[in-house]
Amino acid sequence: MPRVRVESFTISLDGFGAGPNQDLANPLGVGGTSLHGWAMATRTFQTHVFGNDGGETGVDDDFAQRGFHNVGAWILGRNMFGPVRGPWPDESWRGWWGENPVYHVPVFVLTHHARAPLVMEGGTTFHFVTDGPEAALARAREAAGDKDVRVGGGVQTIQQYLRLRLLDELHIAISPVLLGSGERLFDGVDLPALGYACTTHVATTRATHVVLGRA
Amino acid sequence: MPRVRVESFTISLDGFGAGPNQDLANPLGVGGTSLHGWAMATRTFQTHVFGNDGGETGVDDDFAQRGFHNVGAWILGRNMFGPVRGPWPDESWRGWWGENPVYHVPVFVLTHHARAPLVMEGGTTFHFVTDGPEAALARAREAAGDKDVRVGGGVQTIQQYLRLRLLDELHIAISPVLLGSGERLFDGVDLPALGYACTTHVATTRATHVVLGRA
Repeated sequence: MPRVRVESFTISLDGFGAGPNQDLANPLGVGGTSLHGWAMATRTFQTHVFGNDGGETGVDDDFAQRGFHNVGAWILGRNMFGPVRGPWPDESWRGWWGENPVYHVPVFVLTHHARAPLVMEGGTTFHFVTDGPEAALARAREAAGDKDVRVGGGVQTIQQYLRLRLLDELHIAISPVLLGSGERLFDGVDLPALGYACTTHVATTRATHVVLGRA
Repeated sequence: MPRVRVESFTISLDGFGAGPNQDLANPLGVGGTSLHGWAMATRTFQTHVFGNDGGETGVDDDFAQRGFHNVGAWILGRNMFGPVRGPWPDESWRGWWGENPVYHVPVFVLTHHARAPLVMEGGTTFHFVTDGPEAALARAREAAGDKDVRVGGGVQTIQQYLRLRLLDELHIAISPVLLGSGERLFDGVDLPALGYACTTHVATTRATHVVLGRA
């Protein structure tokens, strides 16, 4: 049965999934890029995301790789799609990822502000969903067919799906960095009460990987 | 120069340093004991704390061991000393650790309620300090002489010393468990703003160990 998964979502030692003050120059908030050292080093990110040769294999790469395996649709929060807030001023913002985004499947963007679907190169279409996370998931499941739905983030989006008990599994990486402020992934979310437990725990020199599943 | 250190302080994946509802049966709060699997397995804890033979050596034990090395005095928050709240009803509570506590040096307990020093077996004396964390540290430094002062916890005590920028170094272990509620170590503490950075990062199958130092 298709699953709903969070993959390769990285938090700092002090629990933040993004730094403060996201803007064009800081898609992950100030300091947020430092979270992703483990992912940047992997062959999967180097080839799949950046189109480079090289990158490392091993545990970090295994986790990066599973994040792209069997994914038929994505869900993103609006802030993960871009820095624009409020009603869309125009159609000019087309995501952080250029004309050929890394998704290559339908992507459902949670927003309060309607916008026509945005068809990109390489199979990615951004659909803007204004009727809430459950509706977005229903549409993503339908688009994904036999494949899984990956919830990309950010923090508030994951928290919404956690509280609705709609996530089957989360792969979280903890990076050895401190952010100090920003959005805490587990603020106001009581994971054991929601039925989650840590099912996998593997660490490398770059990150600690845990998988949280429904107990 | 003598240092002020936090050692072997363990938090959950979701950031809690203790579970909720501390009482006699749950010195670390409900679920809190599960945090300390890594420490319980070490030779240092088995021999030094429990008086058993055996226990494992290796990275976990190295960290456990450094926690007892060169420590001339301890500081504990009142709740780490015991479950009694408010004015001391009598002298009957003598700590969680029996008549011969693990400290073997002077221990300064932060409290709002005065009490005469409590001389235990094996070199431990509990001193009850009512004039605040800075006064407690001054007394602990004096008692420690050339040795370091170890701040044992709990969460609120460590936060107080962090905000006062009085900790030179913190060894924090992250255990692969979820607590869901309790006291979060880094709530309301902006570590980079206070001058801390992660200086060491080593993981085992049981825990991720990080050392945070003044940058």
